[in-house]
Amino acid sequence: MGQDTDAQQDPADRFADDPAFAVHVDGKLVVRSTRPITSIEDLALTYTPGVGRVSSAIAAEPELARRFTWAPRVVAVVSDGSAVLGLGDIGPVASLPVMEGKVCLFTEFSGLNAVPIVLNTHDVDTIVETVAAIAPSFGGINLEDISAPRCFEIEQRLRERLDIPVMHDDQHGTAIVVLAALRNAARLTGRELGSLRVVIAGAGAAGVATAKILLDAGVRDIAVADSQGLLHAGREGLTSIKQWLVDHTNPEGRAGTMIGALEGADVYIGLSGGSVPESAIASMAEGSFVFSLANPIPEVDPQMAAKYAAVVATGRSDLPNQINNVLAFPGVFRGAIDAGATDITEGMKVAASEAIAAVVGDDLRPDYVVPSPLDRRVEPAVAEAVAEAARRDGSVR
Amino acid sequence: MGQDTDAQQDPADRFADDPAFAVHVDGKLVVRSTRPITSIEDLALTYTPGVGRVSSAIAAEPELARRFTWAPRVVAVVSDGSAVLGLGDIGPVASLPVMEGKVCLFTEFSGLNAVPIVLNTHDVDTIVETVAAIAPSFGGINLEDISAPRCFEIEQRLRERLDIPVMHDDQHGTAIVVLAALRNAARLTGRELGSLRVVIAGAGAAGVATAKILLDAGVRDIAVADSQGLLHAGREGLTSIKQWLVDHTNPEGRAGTMIGALEGADVYIGLSGGSVPESAIASMAEGSFVFSLANPIPEVDPQMAAKYAAVVATGRSDLPNQINNVLAFPGVFRGAIDAGATDITEGMKVAASEAIAAVVGDDLRPDYVVPSPLDRRVEPAVAEAVAEAARRDGSVR
Repeated sequence: MGQDTDAQQDPADRFADDPAFAVHVDGKLVVRSTRPITSIEDLALTYTPGVGRVSSAIAAEPELARRFTWAPRVVAVVSDGSAVLGLGDIGPVASLPVMEGKVCLFTEFSGLNAVPIVLNTHDVDTIVETVAAIAPSFGGINLEDISAPRCFEIEQRLRERLDIPVMHDDQHGTAIVVLAALRNAARLTGRELGSLRVVIAGAGAAGVATAKILLDAGVRDIAVADSQGLLHAGREGLTSIKQWLVDHTNPEGRAGTMIGALEGADVYIGLSGGSVPESAIASMAEGSFVFSLANPIPEVDPQMAAKYAAVVATGRSDLPNQINNVLAFPGVFRGAIDAGATDITEGMKVAASEAIAAVVGDDLRPDYVVPSPLDRRVEPAVAEAVAEAARRDGSVR
Repeated sequence: MGQDTDAQQDPADRFADDPAFAVHVDGKLVVRSTRPITSIEDLALTYTPGVGRVSSAIAAEPELARRFTWAPRVVAVVSDGSAVLGLGDIGPVASLPVMEGKVCLFTEFSGLNAVPIVLNTHDVDTIVETVAAIAPSFGGINLEDISAPRCFEIEQRLRERLDIPVMHDDQHGTAIVVLAALRNAARLTGRELGSLRVVIAGAGAAGVATAKILLDAGVRDIAVADSQGLLHAGREGLTSIKQWLVDHTNPEGRAGTMIGALEGADVYIGLSGGSVPESAIASMAEGSFVFSLANPIPEVDPQMAAKYAAVVATGRSDLPNQINNVLAFPGVFRGAIDAGATDITEGMKVAASEAIAAVVGDDLRPDYVVPSPLDRRVEPAVAEAVAEAARRDGSVR
């Protein structure tokens, strides 16, 4: 901050009663050289003329960039600030603390580097062209907090266009961890995924991806609801992604409200906000799973849910069974990058969920179906499983 | 590197005889969090839910982003890899070691953060749109190694469009340091800038910017040559920037070759490569200055030049009077960012050159007209002078 600012009141003083602001003074990230530059010799190796020999070698043999540049191990955390946490469309600048935080998690949990890239456009074509133009700078693209349905098209087009891993974490990070929790809840109660009737409340980024990964994992009966009720063949004027859900879910063609669908259901997955009454949870099948993931206020009161359900999970860090994306994305990108993957396939996502579930192991209990977000065993296990799946899928360079 | 690669020969082994490659293994940069994340409390402050309060505050009052995000102190080092060192158009991936090196210099010498952004396009419109789209992520844009004449239009359009400092360093970094050296050479020999007759060989990025800053600093007689000879009113089919030079330089309307123009000239500034014969240097006025900046092979042999010239400067780190951009850009961006500058004006560049020249002070000698690139007094002096000039120009937010 310059002299002009020093003479004025420091904005940090106004927020002195909230420790979150103290953590954010001057931002949360630094870039540093891995080599100190203290001599002319250092300059001559790190910069000219030495760097010219390295650049020449890469120009002649581009694959050398994987060994002699940082880019293959840098993830861009890209957002347009259009769907930030529960705050909605707050724009790129206000989304920066969230993207910096995501980068902190990447660097802390994966050993990869990451950089926040926020975009001052909501236009799908411009976002795709911009990310494609800067892609040679990075080894992976983590799309973040981009609103539905634009997020689906942006991710799909970038996956097709780029030969590095691209993943919209609000979709797949959540979906991977939900599947991990569901696997362990089923194991705990002695059931198969294919026998469960699942209701997903929310057809946004996370709801769509969760439905897809559950299908890939063998769940057969999934009903997805948006704000107008269940998605079924009688609904008209749907977006293409919701039409896809109509075509691939709800095999019994249920219509009506999400609340109505809960009667006799085995699993509720709340990804929508709002509030679910006690009577609806009471109407679910015995031994139900209630995953109520709205943050900070779950759709279902967790204490109430515990009266009926066999397993309760939320998005909150102060309650057991936190469904936290940090269990997935660091290992998913680490594994994809380690394997030289050109894409993050459904098989890699399913493998990630299996690895997360496996970390719980014999400690499985109703209040411990997913590991703690701070469990350092998770990321290496996920990375290894994802890399192996990438090699198996053949999606490696 | 994954297991597949470990089983193959490490490419670093093939380049084991060149220490520059060892320096570049896995790249030269790291991003790290300023806050360790070792507890749920850390997570709750660095990421959700704490980060939501910071983002909300910025959404309501965008100016708070200057205090609570990292972006205002991050410089993007942007290149399309089209004019890299002496290597030419090697493309974005091969240019990465150079851009990483530039970032090392930024972080080492300015205390700012920087990030290399390489672009897989040479199209002017696409480059402008891409940089404009990602601009909210950064506090400054350092354009690097973009070929002429596209570099002029790209810089001009981005300066007009963005409210953060934008500078093409190949133009202005070089120009600032050349002017600093010229000031001190003139002081050493008791002359005024306005009395010098200057010949600039090269009308690319550095040649054009050097001509401009010398005009701003009061040099009146400048002749600029491109590969076809001197730029003068009789030349046809010139690019707009060369036409600008015709309109603003060469007041005596000299035509002919650069070599011919050296007869009786006081200053030669070589920014073009090639070779200048001894007879041309011998034909210059007594007490001449020969700044021969092609790297690694100067246009004029420095030992030969020393037989005739009062001051000889090169771009080489192993010779005295190295004209090195690192004397300028760290302090220029630091000062502009400290002052909250929305632009880097000609006045700020001239102030930077004065500050660099002033560091030499009473130690001025023929072989010491500019400080060493490692002189730690330079960056703070430049930053202070640039910030002061920004406030004087009124180009601050």
